[in-house]
This record gives sequence, structure tokens and C-alpha cells, in this order.
Amino acid sequence: MIKKSPGKGAVRFIEIEKPFLGNNIADAQRLEQALKKELGNKLGNQGVKIPWYLLKNLPSFLRTWDYKARAVLFKDRRGWRLVDLLAPCLIDPVQIKSDQNRPDQIKTDQIKTDQIKTDQIKTDQIKTDLSRPVLGVAIDLGTTRIVIRLLDLESNQILGEVGFDNPQVIIGPDVLARIHHSNKPGGLDQLQGLLVDGVNANLSRLCRENGCDTKDIYLVTGAGNTAMTHLFLGVEAFEIIREPYIPCVNIPDTLMAREVGININDKGLLFVFPNIGSYFGGDLIAGILFADLDKSRVPCLMVDVGTNAEIVVGSRDWLIACAGAAGPALEGGVSKMGMTAGPGVIDRVTIDPVTREVNVHTIEEKRPVGICGSGMIDLAAALFLSGMIDVRGKFSEKICGDRLRQIAGILFFVLVDKKSSGTGQDICLSQIDLNSLTSSKAAMYTILEVIVEKTAGLEFEDLETFYVAGTFGSFIKPASAISIGMLPDIDQSRFEVLGNSSLGGAALLLQNPSLFDRIMEIRQSITYVELNVNQEFMTMFSGAKFYPHTDRSRFPSVDPV
Amino acid sequence: MIKKSPGKGAVRFIEIEKPFLGNNIADAQRLEQALKKELGNKLGNQGVKIPWYLLKNLPSFLRTWDYKARAVLFKDRRGWRLVDLLAPCLIDPVQIKSDQNRPDQIKTDQIKTDQIKTDQIKTDQIKTDLSRPVLGVAIDLGTTRIVIRLLDLESNQILGEVGFDNPQVIIGPDVLARIHHSNKPGGLDQLQGLLVDGVNANLSRLCRENGCDTKDIYLVTGAGNTAMTHLFLGVEAFEIIREPYIPCVNIPDTLMAREVGININDKGLLFVFPNIGSYFGGDLIAGILFADLDKSRVPCLMVDVGTNAEIVVGSRDWLIACAGAAGPALEGGVSKMGMTAGPGVIDRVTIDPVTREVNVHTIEEKRPVGICGSGMIDLAAALFLSGMIDVRGKFSEKICGDRLRQIAGILFFVLVDKKSSGTGQDICLSQIDLNSLTSSKAAMYTILEVIVEKTAGLEFEDLETFYVAGTFGSFIKPASAISIGMLPDIDQSRFEVLGNSSLGGAALLLQNPSLFDRIMEIRQSITYVELNVNQEFMTMFSGAKFYPHTDRSRFPSVDPV
Repeated sequence: MIKKSPGKGAVRFIEIEKPFLGNNIADAQRLEQALKKELGNKLGNQGVKIPWYLLKNLPSFLRTWDYKARAVLFKDRRGWRLVDLLAPCLIDPVQIKSDQNRPDQIKTDQIKTDQIKTDQIKTDQIKTDLSRPVLGVAIDLGTTRIVIRLLDLESNQILGEVGFDNPQVIIGPDVLARIHHSNKPGGLDQLQGLLVDGVNANLSRLCRENGCDTKDIYLVTGAGNTAMTHLFLGVEAFEIIREPYIPCVNIPDTLMAREVGININDKGLLFVFPNIGSYFGGDLIAGILFADLDKSRVPCLMVDVGTNAEIVVGSRDWLIACAGAAGPALEGGVSKMGMTAGPGVIDRVTIDPVTREVNVHTIEEKRPVGICGSGMIDLAAALFLSGMIDVRGKFSEKICGDRLRQIAGILFFVLVDKKSSGTGQDICLSQIDLNSLTSSKAAMYTILEVIVEKTAGLEFEDLETFYVAGTFGSFIKPASAISIGMLPDIDQSRFEVLGNSSLGGAALLLQNPSLFDRIMEIRQSITYVELNVNQEFMTMFSGAKFYPHTDRSRFPSVDPV
Repeated sequence: MIKKSPGKGAVRFIEIEKPFLGNNIADAQRLEQALKKELGNKLGNQGVKIPWYLLKNLPSFLRTWDYKARAVLFKDRRGWRLVDLLAPCLIDPVQIKSDQNRPDQIKTDQIKTDQIKTDQIKTDQIKTDLSRPVLGVAIDLGTTRIVIRLLDLESNQILGEVGFDNPQVIIGPDVLARIHHSNKPGGLDQLQGLLVDGVNANLSRLCRENGCDTKDIYLVTGAGNTAMTHLFLGVEAFEIIREPYIPCVNIPDTLMAREVGININDKGLLFVFPNIGSYFGGDLIAGILFADLDKSRVPCLMVDVGTNAEIVVGSRDWLIACAGAAGPALEGGVSKMGMTAGPGVIDRVTIDPVTREVNVHTIEEKRPVGICGSGMIDLAAALFLSGMIDVRGKFSEKICGDRLRQIAGILFFVLVDKKSSGTGQDICLSQIDLNSLTSSKAAMYTILEVIVEKTAGLEFEDLETFYVAGTFGSFIKPASAISIGMLPDIDQSRFEVLGNSSLGGAALLLQNPSLFDRIMEIRQSITYVELNVNQEFMTMFSGAKFYPHTDRSRFPSVDPV
């Protein structure tokens, strides 16, 4: 298991100047000098924090290791800190042979904070297992789903990934219900415990599957919305949902992972991405980092279509953010459509504009059991382009023909007949479902219009790249979303799917802890705009409820039958 | 128990801006803003660290306290940090009446770092004991004796003090023996445990005697020599005594007091003064701070006569330090004379130059049982001034007469006859004792000469103030020390006894945590000079072995019979 130093990663190979009579400064200070040299001159007067528990046996280790070591480093608001100091062996394979008895790492089992009484570790007692990797973990703290990615911090390779439903769902499906629960006695701890236990169980599984140990994990980075950040850290969240909507904390300090109960190396750190406010969380800052939005010379836009629609537009010079969480127009959100993707779920729909023959594609090509959000957008686009729904988003009884049924006064479009479905039931889209989609797509477009045109003073055409983030967004086909007037009518090549950008940003920080500064800069430079649902907004929203829009000149490429 | 805010102390009364819809930044960040405002604009971009465990219930506390609080603050290398946040009640007595149910402080019993699972504390569950003080403790970590001073951090008043023998004495009387022991398996922990247990026992006693609780202590500052610093923190000390004499750490980070086992408030911090090197410890930096040596416009000198002689000379522009720990001339040290002060110990001696009648004064005026170091200096001065010892430091048989006895070829001067003594034995000074004193006083003078004249290029006359620090030094009478040529012959008004300056400096930092910066500046600005015991030194030493000196012009005021 030979690894290369990643250069700019969290693990650095360092050489410490040996002491002699003319250079008799303390071991800790010589170690700090070596770390500062490795980290570059940008540090200025700022030192590198070396925690007390790494000092205890430092003299023995430095001498045993011939003044060479691997340093696990991380950065926080107060600068660089040493997380652990390990034997130098894995870096330079040539040196390993003669150094089989070198201690691998300072024992940490003894670190108890109530009263630390570590036994003095002698060189001959030190464990000599040299094959232990240095791992890091990035976590996307989603309201619905948690995704964990495991990385080797020396090679910066991704080792594995695991996703699981947020265990807090048993308390409530949305953050509102959970925050209310957190205000009951013991509720906050219960919510935190559910999540932490879920993370721990999946960390164990992920490590087991990759032949490593959770004790090899030294760094955890997490990104989530503001509420999830609070519920993960176990800090009071109730004021987030009560006017004037105050988070407990926007910039959580890096802390020991064990402080919140995360079972990794005892010296391991946890960093949770900062929030901007109650409605703009660390997941989006992670996304901006991942998309390099803050480095772009020309304006770009990122939209995260999750439970809410969160939008950032800008460049390296300015960033404007807006989250569509408030207002009656947005009730129900923009993605409360369809079911979660899974086998048999319809994810693509095409309708022949001439024959009006409907074709569906299902995940894993199983018999259809339902339709997911992106499938629904596809369906709506196909229905509109083939004339089966009109510009108001109403089913055309004349053109739909047999496929329309009316039950209790409500029209249903039968997408898949019960004979062909996997459930034994018809798979239908009701006019009510469609109205809901219409509202959602109109809300999405209106928010985009407000932030890009009204706030930033740009045209959609000015956006070089239109990043679509989030799991839901990953499956949306831009052509379909444009056809129904959900996304603006720009060249499709400008759309770029980011995938799980929250996880991606959290993983980037593991691979390059210097990015911490950029995270703080992003947070500082964002102008957050409250979505003002006033008369003007409602007028724009009404226009956007048409297919594709009341102002057809906005969608020149959309050409229904 | 109404207290005033000390203004610049560790406890500050703060008001936090209330949130409203236009100002909805997070509670933690608003708290930080208030702290930064209180601490002044010098902070720049640097924040105030608010530990994670103070965040958990911050929203409830701020609202219960109407956005007012007392903040316990401390500073370290990385800037200010909040130690605890307490109810605002004690500051403004007018406000107390209506606020009898305000929570006093965030419960800390639950803070366990292995896995922190604090119960959510509701306002009505919070303890309402408003009479708890905020205390701090300064410790002089002496090789022989430990002294603890208890302070109220709101009034900055000293509440009490306790001294006790360093419990490590059972391992070895000097640091050399203890460091050797620390290198044996379990030895380091044993030494640390002895000291920590002793400190804890005496903290309990001190608090009990002052009607308070060790849980009310939030800050501990300690100062000791380099070896004691290591043995207190429990970090490897062995390299200090092995060439090239490398301490493990010179600038220990501030840490949680419980990390080294000190039983105070669970959130309490421990700061140990930094060392310059193996032979120049934090006790001296505390002394420089206490004497304001680094603020003096004109050169001053501070000498700490403890186990070694440690000297600092300088002003606000430069500081030169030297420690007399090395070299054969100094073997036995400068204070290895006589017994420890106590009842019946002779602390003052006068001899009538005409009648040669000897008068002794004992502590508490008990019957004499022995003589302490400062008494011995008095005795030697009186003997020399009355002609009973000659310029070579030898007893004059002719002049001493009856008082001299010869046993096994060695001359003894009978200071107190067995009939008058408290022991039933004669109290004597042998020629061997006197030779030892002669060597010591010569070493002392030579080191002073080296540092002041040879190194700093000054005359003794240039020193505005000559500070004498340390317990031993406190009892030396300058006139006597000058008479025997131990201290230079400058005007007696220039000598200033500092007392326990190590403890004094440690206490100052509690009263004004901003002094942390000065401590780091002092450490940085000191030029440490190794005492080079070469031929020139030995020549100077030989000259200083005369009474008062071979160069009589150096001591114009000394006029023996």
C-alpha cells in the first residue's frame, strides 16, 4: 500500500530540522516551523496549532522517525491545525525497509478529556502497523437522503460512497416538522442521535466494504441546509422557523468529531459548511465551490432544485443568491412532483406529435409503477408539444381522446394502462397534478426571472453556464424543462448537470483544505436577496403559468403542434 | 454579592443586538459581534472563538437574558475565545429583581467529549443560583514549593493564597532527579499526577475556606521553570537534560484544564507561561511582566535567586537573559545555603564592630534552631565588616577568639551556644559552609558582571532599578549582600524586592487577559545568552571570591573594621 503525497492535500510529508547546540529551540516549535514551511509563506505570523495531546511523546517520535513525519492537516477560521502526526514510512517506499519498527502513530485510545492520563509510550511499545491509510469522509446532509463519500487523503482517490434515507424522516418528512419536534423536551437530542447513529452505521459499513477501519478516518466534512446543519450539530433550531428567522449559528467552528458522537479516529475533526441564513445553507456554498462559480470571469447561474429552489447567479466579482422558500406561490415547492426514482419508475416520456403514440421508459426497464419528477416534466413537455395540453396547462379533451377519463369531476390522463403497468392499476396524471406542476414550473421560472433580470440586471442570454445541481435536477432534461417554460430558452449546451454538488464541494475540501478560505470568501461575498412575493412577482408568476409563457417571444425555440 | 465589571478583565458585560427582520444574522454571529465590539477594534478580521458547547442552547439563553450576558473571555495565540456565557444579573443590581428566574449559566455537567449528549435545557429547568462568582487561579509552579492564588475575576480581588511543598519532592528534590524518573515507565504520569493531585487538593481547600466552589474557577494560569512546565503538562522532559538540551515545547497552547486533570469548571482553561529554552522558563517571563521590565524606558535588571540565578537586563527596547545553571563554578547553586525559613530560624544577624557582640533575630522570636540563606548572608556580612573573616573569606582566629572551635581540622564559628539554642546543640557556621557561601556569592556577582558589563555593555550604575525576585531573594538585605560582594555596590534605594514575581505575573494575566500579547512579545524579544564558563569567566570568578572583591574600587561603600 504505497502512496504518493498529494502535494496540496490534507496529508503532507515533512522533514523537521534536527536540533544541535546552536539550534536548541523546542521540538514543538521546530515541528511548527516545518509545518509552516510546508504550508507556504502565506501564513504570516499565524502559527500552526499543534494540539496538546500530540506533544506528550513528540520528542520520542521525532527521534525514532529521524525527524521525518506525515502530518495530517486541516484548516479552520483560526488557521491551520495539526490533526495527527504519523510515521513517515508510507510516503517514501525506499525508506520503509530499514524502518520496520517505526511507530506508526501516537496512540489515541488514551485520549479522554475528563482526565487524560496517557501511559508514557516508549518506542518499543508503539504499534508498528504501517499499512493504515489516512481517510476522510464527505457527507451530504440532505433533508431526505444522506450520502457519504469515503476518500483516501494521501492519494485523494474516492474509495466508495453510500446513500441512505435520512433517519430523521421517522420524526417528520420535512425540516419544519423536525424543527417543531426539536423544541420538545429531548427532541433535539433525539433528532441528532438518529442522524449521528445513521452516519456511524454507514461509516462502519463503508469502511468494512473497503477493508479499512473507521479509526483511519481523520476528517469529516458535511454540507446541508441550515436546518439540517443545526440538527446535525445538535444546536437549537427553533428560531429558524420563527420570525425573524434567526439561525443559532451560521459559521460553525471545526470541532472534534467525537464531540457530536461521530465514531472516527479520536483525533478526527468535523467541519460543517457555513450557512448564509435560515434559507441558504452550506450545501449551496459547497455547490458554488464545486461549480467554481466564484472563479468564473463571466456570469453563470446555479440552481439547486431540491425541496426548495435555490439559485445563485454571479461570477468572481459578485454573487447574488435567492431561495424560493417563502410565499404562497411556492407552496408545495418546485419538486413535490412524482415519486422517488427506483426500478419501474417512468423517467422518460415521448409522444409522437403526429400519431400521438405515447412511449414511456422506466428505470431498469421494469414494468411501470409510477412516474418521477423529471419524468413528469418530460410528460408535460410531450403533452404540450403534441397539443394534448393547451397554453393554460389544461388537458385538451378533443386531442387526448380515449386517454382522458373523468372521475368525480376531475380529468385523468392515462399514461399507462393497468394491463401494462406493474401495479395492476392505471398510471395516471390528473389535472390537479398537472396544475401543481404548472405552479411549480411557473414559480421556478419567476424566481429565475426575478434574480437574473430584476436583481442582477442581466438577460438569460448573458449566462455562460447554467448549472443544475441536486439529485432531482440531475435527471431533468433541459429540452423538456424549456418546452414547458420551467427553464429559460437558452442554448442547451449551456446547461450543465452538477450532480450532488453539495457532496462534491464537501469532498473537494477534504482533498484540498486550503479551500477553506474560499468557502469563507464565498460566504462573505454572497448578497442574499429575500424573495419578495409582491404584486409584481405575482404578475410575473401569472405570466409564467402559461405554456411555455404568456410572452411567447421568451421561448422562440418552443414550437408545439 | 454585587460586583462591578472590571472593564479590562476576563469577565465582561455585553449587550447583543436584538434580531429583527432586517437583521437576521445568526445568534452566534451576533454574539461574536458584541464580543468584538467589547474587545475593541484591534481584532481586525480575527473573530472570537465561541466553542461549540456554548452554542447548543444559545438561542434560549439570549432570549431569556434579554440579549444581555456576562462573558468570560481569555486570549491565546489564536486570539480571543469565549470561555463561558453567564446570566447578566450580577453586573447590574437594578436588573436582578425582575429577573430572579433567569438562568445563571449553561449547564456543563453534561460536557463529555467522548460523546456529548446534553439534554436540551429549557429555560424553566435552568439553575437559577445567581450568587456564583467567577474565579481564577494563578499558580507558581516552583521546583520546591507550589503557591496558589485565588482571585475573583469580576472584582479582580485576591481572595486567598495557599502554599505547599511540591509533592514531586518525594521523587527527587531537584528537577534533574525528577526528569530522570520521568524517563522510566509510568514515571512521567506519576510525576504529573503527584503535582495535579496536590494542586486539586489545595484548590478544594482554598475554595472551601473562601466559601466558593472549584466549579466556579474558569481560568488557571501557571508559571514555572521549563522542567516544571513539562512535568505539569505531562509532556516528555528527558531531552531537556540531554545535549543539545531540547524542550518538548516552549509555547504550550492554552488547553482545557480538565485535559491535564485539573478539577475546576468543565469549561475552564489552563494557560502555562511559555519558556525561552531549557534554562529560562515561564516563571521568569511572568516575572518580567510583573516587574514591567519590558515597559521601562531605561535599563533595569531582574535577578531571580532560586535554585539557579536567573537574570534579565534590559528595557522596552531590548532584553538580555542569562541563567546560571551550567558550569563548575556554579555547582551547588547560589541559594543552597542554610535551611528553609520557619519558626526559630535565624533570619538576621548583627555584630557590634567594636565589642564583637553577636545578636541574632529568629523568626517568631523563638529559640534559635538554625539559620536560613538570607540569615547566612547577614552573618557573613557582619563577620566580614567586624573583621572576623578576612578578605579571602577565612575565619580570623585572632579576632574570633572563643567563638572559633576546631574539630577534625575544620574551623567552626559558634553563632549560638547550645545553652541558648532551641536544639540543645551549638548552632555553628563551618569554614566549609563559608567557602560554599563564598563560591555562591562570587558566582552571583560574576554572572551579574558578565551580563551587565560584558554582554549588555553597561555599568551597574546605569541600572535604574535592580529587581530581586523569588522567595529567597525577598529576604536578602541588599546592604548585607553588597557588603560581601554578592550584589553590586549601587544605591540601596535602587533595589526593589518583587516577592513571588512568578505568581504575580500569572495573576496579572488573570486580571487582564490582553497581557497575553505582551507575554508573547517578551518571549520574542529576549536574547538568551548561554553562560560561557571560559577562562575569562573563571578569572572574574576568582576575583569575586574575595570579600567584597579583589577590586576594592567596585565596592566603595563597603568599609570593614
